[in-house]
Amino acid sequence: MAEKTLDDLFLDTLKDIYYAEKQILKTLPKMARAAQSEEGRQAFLKHRDQTEVQIERLQQVFELVGKAARGKTCEAIQGIIAEGEEIMEEYKGSVALDAGLISSAQAVEHYEIARYGTLKSWAGQLGLDEAVALLDANLQEELQTDLLLTQLGEASANLKGTKKKIA
Amino acid sequence: MAEKTLDDLFLDTLKDIYYAEKQILKTLPKMARAAQSEEGRQAFLKHRDQTEVQIERLQQVFELVGKAARGKTCEAIQGIIAEGEEIMEEYKGSVALDAGLISSAQAVEHYEIARYGTLKSWAGQLGLDEAVALLDANLQEELQTDLLLTQLGEASANLKGTKKKIA
Repeated sequence: MAEKTLDDLFLDTLKDIYYAEKQILKTLPKMARAAQSEEGRQAFLKHRDQTEVQIERLQQVFELVGKAARGKTCEAIQGIIAEGEEIMEEYKGSVALDAGLISSAQAVEHYEIARYGTLKSWAGQLGLDEAVALLDANLQEELQTDLLLTQLGEASANLKGTKKKIA
Repeated sequence: MAEKTLDDLFLDTLKDIYYAEKQILKTLPKMARAAQSEEGRQAFLKHRDQTEVQIERLQQVFELVGKAARGKTCEAIQGIIAEGEEIMEEYKGSVALDAGLISSAQAVEHYEIARYGTLKSWAGQLGLDEAVALLDANLQEELQTDLLLTQLGEASANLKGTKKKIA
């Protein structure tokens, strides 16, 4: 067996995030349906569309390294999504549901940010300049989405504060 | 059954990260033993010591909300750690092992960054000022550790580049 190299690690991690993105694509519409606020619903649907494009970029990276686009079970994203589904169930109909959904989505975002940061750095080390650009495009979108979710979390709290004062 | 509120969500998430930190505390010495570079080993051991202090801060937050410090199984961290252990096994003795370990550690860091960001924001919304300070202290340490790991990943790549040129 040949010794494993950074090329293997890059490919393994690419398969990991490819699987993760496909799971996220399935989960976002569920989160949009669960969301109580229109802003939350829109944010999840928008990110669903972004995720489709991100998956296409990953397919281009597979092409660049001459490998078939194939996922590899990612236990991390399975765990993160399972926790999100638990919140959807346990907090259904509660005032804290949207805060929980946003929090789950941010755990997903941070997993992606970690993986894309690593993959982009490795692509640079391997001299895969086109892959760097594609992975960076995904990374920047995830960072923006995370920021948007933070703002949404704070805005929804302020709104609740206002409602309380009125009531 | 009383309707669930942000207080419940705060406590549930506090239990989640408390469980996660305890798992991380057990995993870091394994990662330190596995690391090939002295810098990697030192980074994991230093973060192990930080994690002990972070767990104490979480115990103080439990006290502030008048609840017993108790963890709640966190499937997300279980999945993230399982992937890290897989890398330790599959890349044992390979040149890419440390890159894989650093990558796994960054996935852990980003999970913590997401959780502490959320918890800090909720603590503010709930008027728990002392908890905000404690959670922010943990958040800042995780952000610094993530940055250190990024630098370590790039430095170890540069070192490998140098070795290649010499050989």
